[in-house]
Amino acid sequence: MSSTEQVENEGKRKRPGGRSAGVVSAVYAATLEILEEGGYERLELPEVAARAGVNKTTVYRRWPTKAELVLDISLLRMEQEVPLPDTGTLHGDLSSLLIAVHAALASPLIAGLIQAAITQNRDVEMIKRMRAEFWATRFAVSGQLVERAVERGELPPGTSPRQFLELASSPLFFRGVITGEVFSQAEITEIARRTILAFSSP
Amino acid sequence: MSSTEQVENEGKRKRPGGRSAGVVSAVYAATLEILEEGGYERLELPEVAARAGVNKTTVYRRWPTKAELVLDISLLRMEQEVPLPDTGTLHGDLSSLLIAVHAALASPLIAGLIQAAITQNRDVEMIKRMRAEFWATRFAVSGQLVERAVERGELPPGTSPRQFLELASSPLFFRGVITGEVFSQAEITEIARRTILAFSSP
Repeated sequence: MSSTEQVENEGKRKRPGGRSAGVVSAVYAATLEILEEGGYERLELPEVAARAGVNKTTVYRRWPTKAELVLDISLLRMEQEVPLPDTGTLHGDLSSLLIAVHAALASPLIAGLIQAAITQNRDVEMIKRMRAEFWATRFAVSGQLVERAVERGELPPGTSPRQFLELASSPLFFRGVITGEVFSQAEITEIARRTILAFSSP
Repeated sequence: MSSTEQVENEGKRKRPGGRSAGVVSAVYAATLEILEEGGYERLELPEVAARAGVNKTTVYRRWPTKAELVLDISLLRMEQEVPLPDTGTLHGDLSSLLIAVHAALASPLIAGLIQAAITQNRDVEMIKRMRAEFWATRFAVSGQLVERAVERGELPPGTSPRQFLELASSPLFFRGVITGEVFSQAEITEIARRTILAFSSP
């Protein structure tokens, strides 16, 4: 994909307006409906188009595969449910972020999307690419929190946003997905404190 | 369950000898075979008994449900694949443990058991209890590594083994189960170093 195309696609994804915005929200609503009914396995683009009342080719032009459609929806959902906090301190920002991630992991849609990504066996290459793009985007967005902390002198220059955020957020996924337990808010702010200690020196 | 029964059951689980040992290993082999063929969904105790050449009531007496059978096998496997290291230093112990966990997560059996635990919808209460017992046992075993480090003065008294080990090991599960990426050995020892820093003060 050329960078011009990429910008255009980003434009399509981020700033749909007018008729285009209507198409996107109708397609998203239809997709979520089908996902809730039968999960990723059951999702097919022609049915999405039919339910959304949109031409099939319109759907395929924007989302050539169902994986790309679900990727777009997942990223949008995470942007809405886990906005980038800006409290003025690293501990405040990280605690807010982790609390929002913890809540998102308990929502049926996010839990369902994660389960779909884990158990999906078909389209393996596509799923891999979709997961990689999802996490690259998520870590890039949340990484701003680390960059701001470095600017404020709260973390050493050169701190890796990915390493920092992965250490902080992985316990939430471990419990949410693997053990099925939840954290209290106090436990989450304690994870934030420990992670900041872990990265307080290079 | 009385503590005497518990001791007896532990005895059965840990030190089977003679005829009993033969039964246990035949049942384990049959179970693994069925799990490999069709996963947890397909596993049924009568078929396990038939394949193992063991009386059905013998199987049911020891493992009243398939969940308990799979729990026993999972714990045994983890004991074998992730033995408790004793290198003399916390960083050595933790790095060894994490490297073994990382390798175990890549093995088809462990990955399959985790996937079964995540996606299993039937027997929900049983699965919950099984997961809780599995993790309580695993953290109790690996927790000795933390207790020894406290005795050596490498960690402050009162350090929570569970919090320490959860912060250290969760990134392995995050990548292994959620993003599908792997860590290099250098990245794993870096996680060990960061975790020790995180718990270097109370």
